[in-house]
Amino acid sequence: MEEKEISQAVISRLPRYLRFLGELQDEGVERVSSQELSDIMRVTASQIRQDLNNFGGFGQQGYGYNVGYLYGEIAKILGLHKEHNLIIVGAGHLGQALVNYMNFERRGFLFRGIFDIDRRIQGTQIRGITVRPMEEMGQFVRENDIDIAVLTIPKSGAAKTAEQLVSYGIKGIWNFAHVDLHVPEDIKVENVHLSDSLMKLSYNLASCDKKNG
Amino acid sequence: MEEKEISQAVISRLPRYLRFLGELQDEGVERVSSQELSDIMRVTASQIRQDLNNFGGFGQQGYGYNVGYLYGEIAKILGLHKEHNLIIVGAGHLGQALVNYMNFERRGFLFRGIFDIDRRIQGTQIRGITVRPMEEMGQFVRENDIDIAVLTIPKSGAAKTAEQLVSYGIKGIWNFAHVDLHVPEDIKVENVHLSDSLMKLSYNLASCDKKNG
Repeated sequence: MEEKEISQAVISRLPRYLRFLGELQDEGVERVSSQELSDIMRVTASQIRQDLNNFGGFGQQGYGYNVGYLYGEIAKILGLHKEHNLIIVGAGHLGQALVNYMNFERRGFLFRGIFDIDRRIQGTQIRGITVRPMEEMGQFVRENDIDIAVLTIPKSGAAKTAEQLVSYGIKGIWNFAHVDLHVPEDIKVENVHLSDSLMKLSYNLASCDKKNG
Repeated sequence: MEEKEISQAVISRLPRYLRFLGELQDEGVERVSSQELSDIMRVTASQIRQDLNNFGGFGQQGYGYNVGYLYGEIAKILGLHKEHNLIIVGAGHLGQALVNYMNFERRGFLFRGIFDIDRRIQGTQIRGITVRPMEEMGQFVRENDIDIAVLTIPKSGAAKTAEQLVSYGIKGIWNFAHVDLHVPEDIKVENVHLSDSLMKLSYNLASCDKKNG
């Protein structure tokens, strides 16, 4: 496979391909044409061909795609064939929600540790995982081969915590704190800014009002 | 202001402008040039000018932007000058996390009701809001001028629930269920697919490994 820079827009669509291919697999479908995929995913067939061509194609002209093979290849591209060891920093409601969401584990994202500054909840367990004090984070990350940290702490402490995590050897940060993190280039950050998403919905509602009224 | 279709990419960036302008306001800064904004936001000054020109500009050549004015205008564009009444459907961990996140309220997103199918938690309260049975949802939406529903239920029930919500008169759905909703065109859906976001992080980690190894 040729090495080239894939746009983040294409990458953003891959999990969606995976989801639909998984559903086809569950239904026992073995082959699918780009036109059929296009119909169920509601994107153009040409977009699908273009996206998949970024990774070498996977389809034969006229034969469509082998669902299981394509699923496996996309999973591999997404790095899902390897397990990831995660810690959650911030054991509030959101942190708890993420720990309790079983689908991540099915995909190979394994929550190994939870950390919080609040002494009152340190020592308690969330789905069998003990909440530890922040002071133990460095050692834990190094000893448990942790590659991803999930930041579910308030904005105020996020920058400093991210810096610490990087110094401990974390490679990826899944950031729910409402702040942009500035980390070295080789550290990958994926932001989930919930407020931003809600404001986008608000914009679309407002602009719809304007059109109709 | 000219009416034209603004791209979703531009709209996605507006909440980030708002965040940085809010921080400047808190620091007492009254004027900012596109170059200064560019430095703190780490996007090009030309991008900033282009984005804001979509809405008529707001800046005077050589004088920069008035921070308070620009903040207010972007807030208005995002529909934040009006209050929104929300319900949460699904009182699990994620639903609870959202109800407890005070920042939404500060922005005018007011949680009015919470609904869940689980009889054991119906009648309990989350931050003073009673969890109600699903059967009461239609009446509640109509009587409380609810415009946004937050879907934090499993994939399996999401499509049917979305359909019901639309029939009750909901205008916007903030969808955390891991499924694409098919609703009439005038209903706005904003998806937060957490698994997709985590997979994107996994991709970026995997592609980084490949480059380095």
